[in-house]
Amino acid sequence: MTSPLFLGIDGGGTRCRARLADAGGRTLGEGVGGAANIRLGLDVAWNAIMEAVDAALAQAGLGREVLSTTYIGLGLAGITNEADQKRVAGSAPVTFAGILSDTDAYTACLGAHAGADGGILISGTGSAAQIIVNGVGRGIGGWGFEVSDLGSGASMGRDAVRAALLGHDGMGPHTDLTRAVMAALGGDPPSVVAWVGPARPGDYGTLAPLVLDHARKGDVLAERLVREQADHLVMHIRRLLELGAPAICLMGGLGPVLLDWMPPWVRGVLTAPKGDAMAGGVLLAMRAGGA
Amino acid sequence: MTSPLFLGIDGGGTRCRARLADAGGRTLGEGVGGAANIRLGLDVAWNAIMEAVDAALAQAGLGREVLSTTYIGLGLAGITNEADQKRVAGSAPVTFAGILSDTDAYTACLGAHAGADGGILISGTGSAAQIIVNGVGRGIGGWGFEVSDLGSGASMGRDAVRAALLGHDGMGPHTDLTRAVMAALGGDPPSVVAWVGPARPGDYGTLAPLVLDHARKGDVLAERLVREQADHLVMHIRRLLELGAPAICLMGGLGPVLLDWMPPWVRGVLTAPKGDAMAGGVLLAMRAGGA
Repeated sequence: MTSPLFLGIDGGGTRCRARLADAGGRTLGEGVGGAANIRLGLDVAWNAIMEAVDAALAQAGLGREVLSTTYIGLGLAGITNEADQKRVAGSAPVTFAGILSDTDAYTACLGAHAGADGGILISGTGSAAQIIVNGVGRGIGGWGFEVSDLGSGASMGRDAVRAALLGHDGMGPHTDLTRAVMAALGGDPPSVVAWVGPARPGDYGTLAPLVLDHARKGDVLAERLVREQADHLVMHIRRLLELGAPAICLMGGLGPVLLDWMPPWVRGVLTAPKGDAMAGGVLLAMRAGGA
Repeated sequence: MTSPLFLGIDGGGTRCRARLADAGGRTLGEGVGGAANIRLGLDVAWNAIMEAVDAALAQAGLGREVLSTTYIGLGLAGITNEADQKRVAGSAPVTFAGILSDTDAYTACLGAHAGADGGILISGTGSAAQIIVNGVGRGIGGWGFEVSDLGSGASMGRDAVRAALLGHDGMGPHTDLTRAVMAALGGDPPSVVAWVGPARPGDYGTLAPLVLDHARKGDVLAERLVREQADHLVMHIRRLLELGAPAICLMGGLGPVLLDWMPPWVRGVLTAPKGDAMAGGVLLAMRAGGA
């Protein structure tokens, strides 16, 4: 009898990554596929997942024939409830030995704490927190750029555009930062309006380095904008502690950068991630296998 | 020789209104047409304008033959500079005796102060301020929902959604208001995310009455959200005074409602509008006629 294998999937909104591991947790192969947010459609998500799976199998020198004895643990963006998890399992295009799925934040948290209880706070273009206590996961924040994702590069960039217009109109401080933002977006309000029209969170996020640079140079407004995003992250960290997280990992492109603007006690509750989101997926797969 | 006539146009993003007046300023007829924001295209804008003009002419018992001796003053949404004004004049589908155009905020300000210097502050779904001093106009704020329009129903509604999610996540006060907002948008974060996806400023604005109701009942969070928007409007009023506005009209569906949340001195600088935006258009038309 073949010993079972385990696939860990980290399926996000831009790409999907797969890791194939054996029962001892050793990596046999990895692969990458397209976006696997289930809001794009289950067929789109599964196509991306299988693209990443096939690449991982190829790297391991294996074919799809092993999948019937392989457990798969899927962390997928866009999953919101148990009904979504059932739809994911029910629409698999091949037969696995077992399937478990959860949000990509859940598997990221699982991987970061190697299956133990803990919390993660991800801050990049967007932001979101996740906690697992007694095995039960809960998402905090991360409900999108428009009304959530506080403590993120996109929020910082949007605040900078707002401040630039207020400075231009004489209703707020007009500093080196606001002048730099106005210049970057075309120099006058109509140009800014034209830039804002099609702008996505990623576009606002491109302004975050400009704000950070000016904050480091002592621009008083830039300092305020950076500190506000750092404060938002501290708010998330307080909440994770309140909910019982024994340790918290601060992740993403912006999170660790903002640590310089957080109070000293924060460093004391942070730990380095023990593994990535694919490792969390592998742990979920092992749970599907009865581990 | 026929005595000249004057057409005042108020062309906004949802509809266009026209008023035909004689040299004494008496209204001869009015009409309505479609959206005349020039960002929709000059042909679309002019179609809407001519629809409103034809209706005004019909009400006056006149035909298009009078237009060659009629001056037209256009207040159009989407005009940002002199190049836009030239493009509007250059694309008129019929011959007028003369054409002048400016933003719809400019003609609203002109009408509100009957051609005298002054400022206006419009707060409804969006917000924008306009000042005319020594005949020269300047727009303040109103650069759009995403990064401007502070002190508006849409901003208030968006803040309420943000507060509702923070309350739900345990990162902010969870009051009668936040519970009412969560309930109105489906009860849980995934439903809120689904609501936010296609939401336009007008959708956020529909939540403003809920916030105002709760503020009047003493909900501490609702009070804060309402006061913040009122403070934003006061910031605009201070700026209009600083720029030399001898009097200010507070207009729109929300502006006068928020007066209750502003400091008492504000009432002392406000005046009732003397005329509407079409009246401002007629004044612009008279200027085109050398008045």
